[in-house]
Amino acid sequence: MGFRSWFAGFALLAMSSGHPASAYDVKAVGSFHIGGEEVVLSGLPDRELRFTANSPPMRVNPNGEFEVGQAYVQYVLLTSPKSPYPILMWHGGGLAGPTWETKPDGGEGWQNWFLRAGYDVYVSDAVERGRASWARFPEIYSVEPFFRPKSEAWELFRFGPPGSFSQKPAERKPYPGVAFPVEAMDQFAKQILPRWTINDERTQKAYDALVQRVCPCIIMAHSTGGPFAFNAALKAPDKVKAVIAVEPAGAPLPTVDLSPLKSVPMLMVWGDNLSSYPVWVKLVPLLASFRDRLAATGGIVEWLDLPAKGMKGNSHMIMMDRNSNEVAALIDAWIVATVK
Amino acid sequence: MGFRSWFAGFALLAMSSGHPASAYDVKAVGSFHIGGEEVVLSGLPDRELRFTANSPPMRVNPNGEFEVGQAYVQYVLLTSPKSPYPILMWHGGGLAGPTWETKPDGGEGWQNWFLRAGYDVYVSDAVERGRASWARFPEIYSVEPFFRPKSEAWELFRFGPPGSFSQKPAERKPYPGVAFPVEAMDQFAKQILPRWTINDERTQKAYDALVQRVCPCIIMAHSTGGPFAFNAALKAPDKVKAVIAVEPAGAPLPTVDLSPLKSVPMLMVWGDNLSSYPVWVKLVPLLASFRDRLAATGGIVEWLDLPAKGMKGNSHMIMMDRNSNEVAALIDAWIVATVK
Repeated sequence: MGFRSWFAGFALLAMSSGHPASAYDVKAVGSFHIGGEEVVLSGLPDRELRFTANSPPMRVNPNGEFEVGQAYVQYVLLTSPKSPYPILMWHGGGLAGPTWETKPDGGEGWQNWFLRAGYDVYVSDAVERGRASWARFPEIYSVEPFFRPKSEAWELFRFGPPGSFSQKPAERKPYPGVAFPVEAMDQFAKQILPRWTINDERTQKAYDALVQRVCPCIIMAHSTGGPFAFNAALKAPDKVKAVIAVEPAGAPLPTVDLSPLKSVPMLMVWGDNLSSYPVWVKLVPLLASFRDRLAATGGIVEWLDLPAKGMKGNSHMIMMDRNSNEVAALIDAWIVATVK
Repeated sequence: MGFRSWFAGFALLAMSSGHPASAYDVKAVGSFHIGGEEVVLSGLPDRELRFTANSPPMRVNPNGEFEVGQAYVQYVLLTSPKSPYPILMWHGGGLAGPTWETKPDGGEGWQNWFLRAGYDVYVSDAVERGRASWARFPEIYSVEPFFRPKSEAWELFRFGPPGSFSQKPAERKPYPGVAFPVEAMDQFAKQILPRWTINDERTQKAYDALVQRVCPCIIMAHSTGGPFAFNAALKAPDKVKAVIAVEPAGAPLPTVDLSPLKSVPMLMVWGDNLSSYPVWVKLVPLLASFRDRLAATGGIVEWLDLPAKGMKGNSHMIMMDRNSNEVAALIDAWIVATVK
């Protein structure tokens, strides 16, 4: 049974029932860093380091050996997973692994949901983010990082239309019926991390190494994590059994041969209000074209447009939205129906 | 039975048997950010942001609202914990939560060990570290961060004596019989994070809020995490049921009234080669004096000098050393014997 026909029959059931398991038997919780290499700084003059803003500076030698370019990966392994394939969860831009953990409003995140559903789960922090660590700039990273202000997150992640953010929570004007818990916006903002614009190659390398280490697997990628997942699947179509791209923010260039992806089923999940912010107006057709090229190779590719299916108001942070459990159930059911 | 007499009778058993449970039933894996506040940047001129080192700069407005000063906390909650008190694991300087996770050599970390032993476990990233995120400097953090080179970690964490580090792994000269898996030094270095010197107050505030949120509890703190734990216990002796300080790198000032800690049992754990590095030569007497002042108040305080007990070669990273399971078993047994 294809996904489209499956969806029609199952969606209501999935949306009303949630998932039964409430606890799960764990073999191990653990983590590792993967990828990266040593970078040596030498010949730099001493720096002045102050231990408080007012204390006299100490002279510190900034030279030496450093590890740069690794990603961080944390896993929870079940004693008896229902799925032969773990899910690798790759976050988007300016964020890290907590994307998939408990939601900013305290509700259950997809990490725990998919554990309950019987998948081993690997949540990563890409190069430069979170526990992966970051490197000195401009000596190692050539440019400075960008700190995303709340207003940009509010608009780009489609909690409210352009111009609707206010510093005062009560004065923010979200999209009518938005599914993101906007009362938890400031809590969500605590997850935002500085990001650089120059580490895509390092990140791809670390993710490719991760695929070689822990797959066969299913990759679930969000936003700018999407292109890393597509590229990882292109390079290792034997290891990547499916890609679930949640509002992917990029796709392989039209010149790239997509035939290796014929054997890699893909699900792309889209929220609401995509026509209200310029970035998404540009990105959606780009991804639709990628979808069409994939379909032309004979690959399985599903475009899950949530509002078209009657699920309204989803933001870019679908895994944090109020209906995240329902969307998770749809994804789980797609995997069960599609991934061999 | 006191710990000293207990140790004599139990140590061999604990050291040889390890811990029986191999899996555990989990109710939830989740996380949250705690503490912090909004900081608004305004009036700053546009920055130039380059998307690659060679691309033309884009003008970016760095102003706006940001969340600053939060810590990140991840928990694994058991369905049926043996202990009524979760363990809160607080890392040391230049590191984050992965301190407690899988060891750099791939062996089991204390997070998983104590889960198997029946404790709920909360692992945190302090303010500015890992998934807690960090803030723009010098506009919000007044000073620049310090990046610890491998050579400093090698000496300060007592893998080898001063001057014994080499870029080439084969040429490094560790302490004879060192328990740290020195072959995993470069892997360990991937965990090292930049650190600031000015965020102690922010970190203490976030940790104090964490204690109010999830305790009663046991705090296990490493290195510079130690002083945060001592202060947290001073402020909430009703909530902190014990402190396990693994090579704590500081103590409350001699002028501080320690009587609130009378009801908070403390275990301090020390490794080997402490007389070989200047920082430790200074710190150990300071902590011994803190211990003596604690004991004078009538509090329970244990000084677990591992080499004196026949366990040789432990580094500063005791939770990563080859005998970490044996030390964990000693700590678990101390908790069982001491914490009411």
